Amino acid sequence: MHTIDLAHHLGRVRETRPLVHNITNHVAMNTMANVLLAHGASPAMAHAREEVGEFAALAGAVTLNIGTLSPDWVNAMEDAARAATDAGTPWVLDPVAVGATALRREAGARLLALSPTAVRGNASEIMALAEQGRGGQGVDSTDTTEAAERAAVVLARRTGAVVAVTGETDLVTDGKRLARVAGGHALMPLVTTLGCALTGVVGAHLAIGEEPFDACVAALASYAVAGSIAGEHASGPGSFAVAFLDALHALDANTLTARAQLEITHAT
Amino acid sequence: MHTIDLAHHLGRVRETRPLVHNITNHVAMNTMANVLLAHGASPAMAHAREEVGEFAALAGAVTLNIGTLSPDWVNAMEDAARAATDAGTPWVLDPVAVGATALRREAGARLLALSPTAVRGNASEIMALAEQGRGGQGVDSTDTTEAAERAAVVLARRTGAVVAVTGETDLVTDGKRLARVAGGHALMPLVTTLGCALTGVVGAHLAIGEEPFDACVAALASYAVAGSIAGEHASGPGSFAVAFLDALHALDANTLTARAQLEITHAT
Amino acid sequence: MHTIDLAHHLGRVRETRPLVHNITNHVAMNTMANVLLAHGASPAMAHAREEVGEFAALAGAVTLNIGTLSPDWVNAMEDAARAATDAGTPWVLDPVAVGATALRREAGARLLALSPTAVRGNASEIMALAEQGRGGQGVDSTDTTEAAERAAVVLARRTGAVVAVTGETDLVTDGKRLARVAGGHALMPLVTTLGCALTGVVGAHLAIGEEPFDACVAALASYAVAGSIAGEHASGPGSFAVAFLDALHALDANTLTARAQLEITHAT
Repeated sequence: MHTIDLAHHLGRVRETRPLVHNITNHVAMNTMANVLLAHGASPAMAHAREEVGEFAALAGAVTLNIGTLSPDWVNAMEDAARAATDAGTPWVLDPVAVGATALRREAGARLLALSPTAVRGNASEIMALAEQGRGGQGVDSTDTTEAAERAAVVLARRTGAVVAVTGETDLVTDGKRLARVAGGHALMPLVTTLGCALTGVVGAHLAIGEEPFDACVAALASYAVAGSIAGEHASGPGSFAVAFLDALHALDANTLTARAQLEITHAT
Repeated sequence: MHTIDLAHHLGRVRETRPLVHNITNHVAMNTMANVLLAHGASPAMAHAREEVGEFAALAGAVTLNIGTLSPDWVNAMEDAARAATDAGTPWVLDPVAVGATALRREAGARLLALSPTAVRGNASEIMALAEQGRGGQGVDSTDTTEAAERAAVVLARRTGAVVAVTGETDLVTDGKRLARVAGGHALMPLVTTLGCALTGVVGAHLAIGEEPFDACVAALASYAVAGSIAGEHASGPGSFAVAFLDALHALDANTLTARAQLEITHAT
Repeated sequence: MHTIDLAHHLGRVRETRPLVHNITNHVAMNTMANVLLAHGASPAMAHAREEVGEFAALAGAVTLNIGTLSPDWVNAMEDAARAATDAGTPWVLDPVAVGATALRREAGARLLALSPTAVRGNASEIMALAEQGRGGQGVDSTDTTEAAERAAVVLARRTGAVVAVTGETDLVTDGKRLARVAGGHALMPLVTTLGCALTGVVGAHLAIGEEPFDACVAALASYAVAGSIAGEHASGPGSFAVAFLDALHALDANTLTARAQLEITHAT
């Protein structure tokens, strides 16, 4: 059915080098900035309520991640989400461990109510957001990606967001279509915040003005191919993290097109 | 006298993959999460007072590190320590640079009064906590590990905590026994926050329900062996950090048992 | 005209291992600590208003970076700047993205008014501080280093600070002299916070008591040579970051002297 010109999406990110403004968790900030630079985008991190509106207006996309949230930071995230929406700027919600505590459930609900362009999480997080699961422990997923498929479709239909569930095989849905993106590598979950950093890459792809479903799929496909390549050069999680940045930076249109494992069907 | 089945301890961490909740400093968060993942545990970082009690109750162990403290964060650390104690969950204090400022001395005293299961620091920090030293400059130790032996025993006897002093040779004491753990590598102190991350590994070992003295020794022995192995593959602090994560992840029972340099005596 | 004994400066940092106290952004903290350790200095990160004065007084130099600023942190930075000045301790301002928002413009102006010993930024940042530019997007420079030369000289003359503009070729000026430092590598801007970390290295060189202009030039020359060497061993931004720490740590007097590309003229 639907086809996506992955090489075009990647090329547009590299050509336009979009500014992605991220309010993300303390663990992820450095990794996310390096991943965005390696992918060809320009990262900005800023969280003060006094300036997040200005940054969101400057940026091509905004990403909001509740990993190390506090009430002040959630307020700033709401301001950034509103400023992005007012400016017509796409924004992405990353609901880290949203099911784990009352503070996270409330933050997730408040941010979801502001209509993100996309939501990216693991299976437990997406299920918790869709009120179909009780969330995982910490930030690691305890549900399989497949089991979250239903939750993702429900969440996409209810909110209008494109929903991406990442795991061994990634899912992307806008409620009508469902993409499965395979690839990656078994060491990826052993490198902290690679998922959070992927949210930044989703932001970079949304920033180039293509359709959000296609943009999310292209972001995840690029990430999965870079992960597969990195895995060929790694002997553990330390060397994987290094090889992954190198592979993301070196990723070219031909390699992406040749190695992407992508299947798009109707969502049911 | 006392013997510890190091392989059993390591195997239990890998099998049970304990959730370790850390309120740690901004410098250490990413390294600590990667170290915990490489070692086979599951990290969570969260510092908001509104949720630390819930996280402590979910976790197998809690670790508290005052490296980049602020009054709000110390309040959250107290809440987490109390919640851990109430839940019967072991917790570890990492008193970074505790002797350097009044704020740190007060925070160290407040947290110590809540009866940590274990304390891990460098020689200066343990001496400062035991009121025998004036603390080092910044976060690096200016006293030798041996000179801190007396302080560690005093501190363990006074507080009931297992006290670990890490340095060229590590010490662990519960006030009755004293373990010396050798190994590691000269590049380890040149990689920031490897000590802070070790506190997380101590947490992971405490989480599996073994005796705290044995758990601390097993954590330090695993770390020292991984450090020795990493040193064989490193040409500087950058490549050491990468090799260390690979070595920790690859560490198996036989290698640990064969290479651990461990001596246990009576504390005097 | 003026010559600088780079090997002497590097040797003094390694011999004295100065404590550098940094209030820096969340993205940079880990990288900066590793860079300072690799270079032979001792890093401390602390931001609580209750203790920054004590840390500034303990330190050989202080560095202040507004990358992820908040009003509280800017207040702490002012306290640290005042404590450093009172103690006769040199301090460095790193005005990240100072032109991007009202909060940053105000923070930059407040800190600049406290008379930093040195200012290090990219071209856009230095031009924004000198009120000659409108600042770049995010943290990446959109002006060429050459175009910022005039701004740097104006800023140095107005404030009395040594001003360093880093980019493809770095500039250092005290308003009378102008140094150009070439070298480095094209991958350096693709590793996040290497510029922020350089501010720490400038602090380490200021701490040894040499003339500030010479100290800044020596810091930048060391960094550029290490960057060039790292580039010979890197296949992308991930491996570059690793090789850079190794190269900085391995940098010796002979290599520094032989490979430094340095030109000093009168500022016009």
